[in-house]
Amino acid sequence: MNHLAQTIWQDLISIRETKPLIHNITNYVVMNNTANALLALGASPVMAHASNEVEEMVNLAAALVINIGTLNDDWIAAMHKAMFTAKKLNKPIIFDPVGAGATIYRTETTKKLLNIATPTVIRGNASEIAAIANQNITTKGVDSTQDSQTVVSVAQTLANLYQCTIVISGAIDFVVSQERIFQIENGHPLMSKVTGMGCTATALIAAFQAVNADATIAATHAMAIMGIAGEIAAERSVGPGSLQLNFLDALYNLKAEDITNRLKLTTT
Amino acid sequence: MNHLAQTIWQDLISIRETKPLIHNITNYVVMNNTANALLALGASPVMAHASNEVEEMVNLAAALVINIGTLNDDWIAAMHKAMFTAKKLNKPIIFDPVGAGATIYRTETTKKLLNIATPTVIRGNASEIAAIANQNITTKGVDSTQDSQTVVSVAQTLANLYQCTIVISGAIDFVVSQERIFQIENGHPLMSKVTGMGCTATALIAAFQAVNADATIAATHAMAIMGIAGEIAAERSVGPGSLQLNFLDALYNLKAEDITNRLKLTTT
Amino acid sequence: MNHLAQTIWQDLISIRETKPLIHNITNYVVMNNTANALLALGASPVMAHASNEVEEMVNLAAALVINIGTLNDDWIAAMHKAMFTAKKLNKPIIFDPVGAGATIYRTETTKKLLNIATPTVIRGNASEIAAIANQNITTKGVDSTQDSQTVVSVAQTLANLYQCTIVISGAIDFVVSQERIFQIENGHPLMSKVTGMGCTATALIAAFQAVNADATIAATHAMAIMGIAGEIAAERSVGPGSLQLNFLDALYNLKAEDITNRLKLTTT
Repeated sequence: MNHLAQTIWQDLISIRETKPLIHNITNYVVMNNTANALLALGASPVMAHASNEVEEMVNLAAALVINIGTLNDDWIAAMHKAMFTAKKLNKPIIFDPVGAGATIYRTETTKKLLNIATPTVIRGNASEIAAIANQNITTKGVDSTQDSQTVVSVAQTLANLYQCTIVISGAIDFVVSQERIFQIENGHPLMSKVTGMGCTATALIAAFQAVNADATIAATHAMAIMGIAGEIAAERSVGPGSLQLNFLDALYNLKAEDITNRLKLTTT
Repeated sequence: MNHLAQTIWQDLISIRETKPLIHNITNYVVMNNTANALLALGASPVMAHASNEVEEMVNLAAALVINIGTLNDDWIAAMHKAMFTAKKLNKPIIFDPVGAGATIYRTETTKKLLNIATPTVIRGNASEIAAIANQNITTKGVDSTQDSQTVVSVAQTLANLYQCTIVISGAIDFVVSQERIFQIENGHPLMSKVTGMGCTATALIAAFQAVNADATIAATHAMAIMGIAGEIAAERSVGPGSLQLNFLDALYNLKAEDITNRLKLTTT
Repeated sequence: MNHLAQTIWQDLISIRETKPLIHNITNYVVMNNTANALLALGASPVMAHASNEVEEMVNLAAALVINIGTLNDDWIAAMHKAMFTAKKLNKPIIFDPVGAGATIYRTETTKKLLNIATPTVIRGNASEIAAIANQNITTKGVDSTQDSQTVVSVAQTLANLYQCTIVISGAIDFVVSQERIFQIENGHPLMSKVTGMGCTATALIAAFQAVNADATIAATHAMAIMGIAGEIAAERSVGPGSLQLNFLDALYNLKAEDITNRLKLTTT
């Protein structure tokens, strides 16, 4: 087993052994899926969005996921409070700007929340990451069809601006910090036909933050596991229905040799 | 391939090629399922219910789904706004009166929303459609055990009243406009053992509106595809758990010959 | 077929024949699962949480499920109203204190709701039941690793305090009333890797209340069916993804001999 695969496997083992509690304030569409993905990975999910309890829940949790997929003003207030608390307690915040750029409400909310407390990791697709970048820097819009260099360059600008790790997921996933760039080519196109696979990646990143203090490496490991489980699942599936089921089973049964044999991780 | 099957197939191909964005304000129970069904069909779902963003989202979308399955006052306000905007922009509105007739709140909300903006298509089961009709016309209540003639007659009254297309789904589906009646006998009883299959039909109707300007024909095509995918799935399933999975896989893999070989569509 | 298995089978047949309407005010994460589990069992689920309609819905329903998994103040108000109405109408209330003990908000809400109207059955894991007990009695905290005797003793105190049936689910399930203790050893560890299986058990208990007037026996029957369907499903599954699907299929297809051959129910 090579060194890289070994360190990823080590993190996965730690998650399975310590079952870190991951607090999710996430959207209605994916709550069930992300809870199940966290359980299949070995972590313990909790979903709680009431302003009255988010501080206590953050206090219990090892990491906080903020996902803006289905917003309203009460939820935003709870997200504020939870992020502020997590920052104070030095707990990792993983932010998913679902649909940023699609409506002013989502883009503005993202902007406000990022000013409350800088996340440890921001994960989105190229359009969402570009939408955040456009808030602060002058850049040409990019989307998932854009060339990799443009995508990475936008991520770097954002990583510098917020001093955090940026994950751009797509056919190729990029994990970008101020100093480093990792590139993961695992995964399968069928994954894009299941709703919430991006949100699931965000939740898995949170679990890895709980066991690995290097945020960029932890995010990279999470994306590798996500992609490997996804491609194992896709090989056994005839459509998006079976993919969902097989993804959870693959994640639950993932073995060291799956990582060794399949990992396509490079750094540049 | 006969002409009818050909035109349905053509719409399906158009959806797969153009990936129309379908904006859903729908209930919590089925959000995940309907998003996945739209993806499996080839469309692009978005779920957004905040008053602050529904106008923008309608503007981006090719069609709007309004489903009252889990209501509260904030959601109703957002539905108002979204329907008003869709009407102004001439975008198809597909309305699902889940549980109309069961509580005054649902029946009254349906009534109010239908007065804001007449939908392009209303889809419900016989009881729900009758509940709406009872608001405005004198009729004996019908339910799914009622004879087809009564069901169709209620639908026609409602189609005339609102000048829109009415879809009554059940063991036999009826698509009724002011001038036309289509009858689809595809589908399988096991589908009624999975929650949200009706809501899924509503979402599929929206996707077909995006590619076919004849609302009644588009709704008929959607119900045919729904029924055919459902019966293919049921043949491969031993219960409602496997049906859910197989339905998404069947929808994703649907071929021209599946339509040709299975279509049971008549017009009267 | 032995007598115990026979009475459980009889209840299951009654549910399949009478299709009792179960009104759920439950959390976002599990709404879809519990609706599907109730359908697979043979019951009719309805999910409705708006204050404006819960009274009417309780009136139509055979039993009411209250699950505090994802709270906010509006939902609590609706729960109040629904429980009050159910009590007035003498309809069974099944209460699931998800996460009681984890935050003050959940523990306090549970306390308030239990004072509005005593449930017929409270179902939780050992920690949640202990958290409620701690509100009222002096006891050492217990958790799922605690010995059975402590768990049962806490349940008995609570059963006496609220004069209701307490179900503690875990590797072994206990159903405890003021006079009786039942113990069910069906089920499978993989069930704990799927989110919302506890919430599903709560919903199934509600369906059995609708057909069996002895609340403690009805709850025991529900837990036996839950465990038996779960273990059949687990034997056919390679992970938590397939377990979900197989659980619904097993529940839907459950036969008298499955109960006879597998039931591990004892009373002490």
